[in-house]
Amino acid sequence: MEAPLEYAIGIDIGGTTAKFGIVNHRGEISHRGKLATNKHTDVNIFIDELHNALQPAIKEVGGLEMIKGIGVGAPNGNYYNGTIEFAPNLLWRGVIPLAKLISDKFDKPCTLTNDANAAAVGEMMYGAARGMKDFIMITLGTGVGSGIIANGQLILGHDGFAGELGHTVIRPKGRLHPGTGMHGTLETYASATGIVETAKEMLEDNPKQKSVLRKISAKKLDSKAVYEAAIEGDKIAKEVFKFTGQILGEALANFVMFSSPEAIILFGGVIKAGKLLMNPVKKHMEKNLLPIFQNKVKLLFSELKESDAAILGASALVWEIKEKQPE
Amino acid sequence: MEAPLEYAIGIDIGGTTAKFGIVNHRGEISHRGKLATNKHTDVNIFIDELHNALQPAIKEVGGLEMIKGIGVGAPNGNYYNGTIEFAPNLLWRGVIPLAKLISDKFDKPCTLTNDANAAAVGEMMYGAARGMKDFIMITLGTGVGSGIIANGQLILGHDGFAGELGHTVIRPKGRLHPGTGMHGTLETYASATGIVETAKEMLEDNPKQKSVLRKISAKKLDSKAVYEAAIEGDKIAKEVFKFTGQILGEALANFVMFSSPEAIILFGGVIKAGKLLMNPVKKHMEKNLLPIFQNKVKLLFSELKESDAAILGASALVWEIKEKQPE
Repeated sequence: MEAPLEYAIGIDIGGTTAKFGIVNHRGEISHRGKLATNKHTDVNIFIDELHNALQPAIKEVGGLEMIKGIGVGAPNGNYYNGTIEFAPNLLWRGVIPLAKLISDKFDKPCTLTNDANAAAVGEMMYGAARGMKDFIMITLGTGVGSGIIANGQLILGHDGFAGELGHTVIRPKGRLHPGTGMHGTLETYASATGIVETAKEMLEDNPKQKSVLRKISAKKLDSKAVYEAAIEGDKIAKEVFKFTGQILGEALANFVMFSSPEAIILFGGVIKAGKLLMNPVKKHMEKNLLPIFQNKVKLLFSELKESDAAILGASALVWEIKEKQPE
Repeated sequence: MEAPLEYAIGIDIGGTTAKFGIVNHRGEISHRGKLATNKHTDVNIFIDELHNALQPAIKEVGGLEMIKGIGVGAPNGNYYNGTIEFAPNLLWRGVIPLAKLISDKFDKPCTLTNDANAAAVGEMMYGAARGMKDFIMITLGTGVGSGIIANGQLILGHDGFAGELGHTVIRPKGRLHPGTGMHGTLETYASATGIVETAKEMLEDNPKQKSVLRKISAKKLDSKAVYEAAIEGDKIAKEVFKFTGQILGEALANFVMFSSPEAIILFGGVIKAGKLLMNPVKKHMEKNLLPIFQNKVKLLFSELKESDAAILGASALVWEIKEKQPE
């Protein structure tokens, strides 16, 4: 038997940057770095830059022979194929065989999955879901993503694309989602973008109601401003979070009746709203559950820093890479 | 090592009858029988009757030593606890430790699960889902039940109650479900009961539209009559199936974006409507899916006789009972 390989490389790919780190078996990240993803349409340039950026770190931990493999979390990442497929927020178009490109370049096995799935695995191994076998992770950022764990495993589906809960319809014929053309999906309401949209609608529908939000130009209005106004007691801003929480709570109730998770873990920029969001979420989730599910599901915030969760989750996939059997 | 135990007993418990059979490893059912479940509020009387009813069959297959165990599918059945909990359609109230009662009486291990879960396992082992690792079974009868398989396993959830898709809300503030007090759940529309309700509403809302359904008294109107009228070209009856199919299709789209199944298998009395239901279901499911999920999910009808699926599925649980390790 060979000595155990001590480190995994975890990479979290986003629309503007890729963050990476070297992770040991205890989930400690070292040698963090980042790299732009919005500079070149040719993914090969990104792979070269990534390779260069990681060389000093790899050398410092003792060379390539100390690295077991590379794990990647990426939007529209497919675990089965190792591909990124038609990711609307990335410059790399179509189907990108990212795992193979990385594996060839680094001469190490590479595993890839959806970014929200990677975050869920990170949370299960090192965060708020430690020891849980059934939970759902919902990421509330510019969009709404999700990663579902059941029976201690990621739910990937027959094609690797399971867990697109942000695109489930929660208000039939509701708000248009410009990216997908669908109406009334969770993402159109519960994302940072959705919160701003709700604020704009409420400002327009209640022209006589004073609000500090009216002082902010439509272009500059963001979910942070709505949150800050709500904290200051702004009536419309508070209503925005009540409404957002109701929609999200109703959606979570439906998810609970699907997989009956021990917990739902919320993650991403929007959770900075804290109780402003959580109180209505909890109220409307419970209200829409069958009695057998009521007052059982823990609603938790992530315990990991945002970028750490995906790096850790991606790196965790590496430990599951099967060694080749000796022949 | 002992000789392999050849048979399992499968039991499907419903609100009026329990159906049972002896099942071999190839999924062949013999010695079928049934027993009333709506006669006695004391479950112990049922257990005694079941024991008596099964004695001749057990003797014929070679005695108790040929039986590996007993599997039960029951409404509100909980796999983890072996209990039936607060089943509204059964006379046995509260929490019934059915698996333990059966196991004690027969001196054989007993495994119990929700009836729709049992049907899903039956379909996976012997029916339309043979060889599939990811599918959803939807039972459309008096109510709407579901069993979810992902990664080749039943999704049970942290408490054993996962898969209550009939109670997910598909029309917020929609039709009242008298049993649960919830509004707009799938079951209020897509069950046989929901179909009759829709027919009554459409007859009332369109008083000038002729319909053969007007000749049937409100008490006697059932989903079979609506189906037969639709086949004969009755306009309102056809509309009823279009509407039901739309709601079910929209709900299925949401389920697909949760677990990305290879197939959705429909099961139960309502599927006798065939294409009348399937065409609008398919249309509205596809319409509400993200492109990455479109034209991939098979919509199938069950290949098993209704009572057989649950008996087979319940018996299949028996083969998974772990033998005690030799000490």
